[in-house]
Amino acid sequence: MNYQRIVYSLSIILLIIGLAMLLPLFCSLYYGETDSYALALSCGVIYLVGFLGFKKAKTEGEFLHKEVFFIVTVGWILVSIFGSIPYLLSGTFTSFADAFFETMSGFTTTGASVLTDVEALPHGLLLWRSLTHWLGGMGIIVLFVALFPSVGIGGMQMYQAEAPGGSLMKKIRPRISEMAKVLWSIYLIMTIAEIILLYIAGMPLFDAVCHTFGTVATGGFSIKNASIGYYNNAAIEWIITIFMFLSGANFALYYTIYRRKKLSVFTHNNEFKLYTLIVLTAIIFEVYSLYSISGYSIGDSIREAAFLVVSIITTTGFGTADFAQWSFLGQVILISLMFVGGCTGSTGGSIKVGRILVLIKQTKLELQRCLHPRAVLSLKIDGENVAHQNVLNVTVFFFLYIGIVLAGTILMTVVGRDLITSFTAAATCLGNIGPGLGLVGPTKNFAFLSGGEKYFLSFLMLLGRLEIYTVLVLFLPSFWRKG
Amino acid sequence: MNYQRIVYSLSIILLIIGLAMLLPLFCSLYYGETDSYALALSCGVIYLVGFLGFKKAKTEGEFLHKEVFFIVTVGWILVSIFGSIPYLLSGTFTSFADAFFETMSGFTTTGASVLTDVEALPHGLLLWRSLTHWLGGMGIIVLFVALFPSVGIGGMQMYQAEAPGGSLMKKIRPRISEMAKVLWSIYLIMTIAEIILLYIAGMPLFDAVCHTFGTVATGGFSIKNASIGYYNNAAIEWIITIFMFLSGANFALYYTIYRRKKLSVFTHNNEFKLYTLIVLTAIIFEVYSLYSISGYSIGDSIREAAFLVVSIITTTGFGTADFAQWSFLGQVILISLMFVGGCTGSTGGSIKVGRILVLIKQTKLELQRCLHPRAVLSLKIDGENVAHQNVLNVTVFFFLYIGIVLAGTILMTVVGRDLITSFTAAATCLGNIGPGLGLVGPTKNFAFLSGGEKYFLSFLMLLGRLEIYTVLVLFLPSFWRKG
Repeated sequence: MNYQRIVYSLSIILLIIGLAMLLPLFCSLYYGETDSYALALSCGVIYLVGFLGFKKAKTEGEFLHKEVFFIVTVGWILVSIFGSIPYLLSGTFTSFADAFFETMSGFTTTGASVLTDVEALPHGLLLWRSLTHWLGGMGIIVLFVALFPSVGIGGMQMYQAEAPGGSLMKKIRPRISEMAKVLWSIYLIMTIAEIILLYIAGMPLFDAVCHTFGTVATGGFSIKNASIGYYNNAAIEWIITIFMFLSGANFALYYTIYRRKKLSVFTHNNEFKLYTLIVLTAIIFEVYSLYSISGYSIGDSIREAAFLVVSIITTTGFGTADFAQWSFLGQVILISLMFVGGCTGSTGGSIKVGRILVLIKQTKLELQRCLHPRAVLSLKIDGENVAHQNVLNVTVFFFLYIGIVLAGTILMTVVGRDLITSFTAAATCLGNIGPGLGLVGPTKNFAFLSGGEKYFLSFLMLLGRLEIYTVLVLFLPSFWRKG
Repeated sequence: MNYQRIVYSLSIILLIIGLAMLLPLFCSLYYGETDSYALALSCGVIYLVGFLGFKKAKTEGEFLHKEVFFIVTVGWILVSIFGSIPYLLSGTFTSFADAFFETMSGFTTTGASVLTDVEALPHGLLLWRSLTHWLGGMGIIVLFVALFPSVGIGGMQMYQAEAPGGSLMKKIRPRISEMAKVLWSIYLIMTIAEIILLYIAGMPLFDAVCHTFGTVATGGFSIKNASIGYYNNAAIEWIITIFMFLSGANFALYYTIYRRKKLSVFTHNNEFKLYTLIVLTAIIFEVYSLYSISGYSIGDSIREAAFLVVSIITTTGFGTADFAQWSFLGQVILISLMFVGGCTGSTGGSIKVGRILVLIKQTKLELQRCLHPRAVLSLKIDGENVAHQNVLNVTVFFFLYIGIVLAGTILMTVVGRDLITSFTAAATCLGNIGPGLGLVGPTKNFAFLSGGEKYFLSFLMLLGRLEIYTVLVLFLPSFWRKG
């Protein structure tokens, strides 16, 4: 591995984070709050370390695959370490485990929090917290690639290692930096649109900015203890529901629609159709469950069901209601959605609709092969053949995903947590969702966990955000062999 | 489809069951109990229907694949319907759903019971109940193939559609009927050996026969309400533990050992090694969990842990202790084992160690492919390449398995069951295990469920026993098209 260009790449990533931190710093100065000191000092530390590592290295030419995986994984750990400095300097957290968990939860767009009273935080820190979502949602590396086109082919590999559903995406045209710019532009437009709409609907501007960051990144951090439920405003809930849904779809679709000026792009996309189908089916189940049991009005049932279904499937995790109080059917549907996630190329986490689609289609093929063992059957998505190799990659991903949730559950029970808490904590962190059930239910938080559990769950968040393979390859013995 | 030979095959299967029922009938006559009437009448009904359908048809030549799947699936449903007649005629059950559930649970070697007081049953019925395990364990169709070698190639297909891990097994030599005879011979020898050992250890002969049927078939029906815990005898527990373990291994291995006179066959078999490794690891976890918490002696901890770990992983489901009272760690380990199951070619159910092995090895390959995308990597088991196609079959099986457990859980919550009860009921029935947690915990039974739930869980047992594909192909629209 060429350590010179690794250090160079990592320091650029760090500097991007440092630059982004200026936004909450200015905000803090504007409000004249005490956290400006912590944010300014954090920026200082980050610039210092960033510039120390910043020695122009030869980044042209193909990066080794292992270099890419190393940069992406270590880069994400680094930004979570340095991103937690403001929390520590401001005294928000006294333990590093807490600060690291909150920052990793932010960047990975998980939205699980160890804050017991989020409303006590000053504006600057609240904005930083929501900004970590926004940066992590579309991807720090994607941003790096967009800003530094010179990295060339290495950038494309990094992009695939980081982008949600990266391994699923079709070969993108060579000009990866252009694609990265397009994605970030769409992301920016969606962000601005939602801020304006929320503001019009009656949310204060600062709140609108923070909640928009949490929405478009499918993050889930709120600046209110009662999350979106605080506003008790149907218009706000519907706006957020729609933007969560849009952020859970493939951003490349929006670009295609923009270019072709045709909405039929949606109906020709197998993944988007399945995504919509799952969302609608789940909403019907939840409306049935809510309306029949708790005596909600039909309108309230639909609004709450739609909000929570979309919040969970897109792995956002915003809340308006305590679904731990819902019927068992309602809870199981939400738990199932935790294992679906957004579409390929969205900001959503978890397994992803695209992979579920491949699994369902391959299941049909396997059944057909029982009847016609000699037939040559190959899987088609959007009319195009998918190579056996890629199908295997997807089916193995599913096994790994379930296996890691199981291993996570076992490890949580070792320290004595109950079955529901352990299982949902592992699932919600690996899926980058946020709320679970039991002790980590929607009205609770992760503060009570031990330091060890917090580091472990942070690791699961990272695994989930980088889609497992990118991180796990670092554990292969052959990764560390020379050559 | 050639309905003539389908009816012919089904009636032979029915007649085999009718013949087997003579054993409990004689037993009942020997004890001079009232159930002899019910058993005799049942035999009469079965012979009548069997002979009505028995018209010698041309069974030579290749069976259509769809005929095979149809015969196997419908054959299993038929024997479960006719096998439940003795329960109904004797008045053990008044509802057909109960009798059908108990019989399907017997033949599929699940061992989940709807009897609230099993000790109230007369000897004949108890023996019939245990005999359903024994017949279903090695497979009714395998027996059919062993007894009627004339079916030829159709027999081999049927064998693969029914045998546990059938789709995983290597192409067996053409003389399938010989293989079937070998397997049944080994099965018979193991049965006799265990009966003798249990008798020596102090179990009454009748009890020894019934519990041996439940052991070697990895069934789990006991004739005592407290299951094996009733005897409170360490020797009995260890004997059953060892025979459960042996029954969870590939029976073809025993044949190879017999032919080659070498025990090293075990150590050269990847699947057997993984099976042993999982069992030992789980025992260590359970001993830790038992010894550290409930203050068991180390000897008792090891005995209980070994018994339950082997009982669950082999999908037997015999009990000595109420593991619902164990620590959460202990419970999660057992739940995890429910998704492992026995080896290919054993009588155990669930996913099977062989499939887990393929999944783990393919995971390593996928990770290596991240680093070397152009390398040609293929999976090897016992030194032999496994075709991509077969790997896909396994990985998709895993998805289907998890998907069906999830769907089962959702359906159980629709009628209001809690999460743990719903999830473990679906998992324990699909895996052909027996006990779950919550309302279907180890000291409880399935009697309280509604008729609809009983039929649904019976269907899951059938799906699990025939390894999903065999049953699901009947739901393909193309299955019913002509040609």
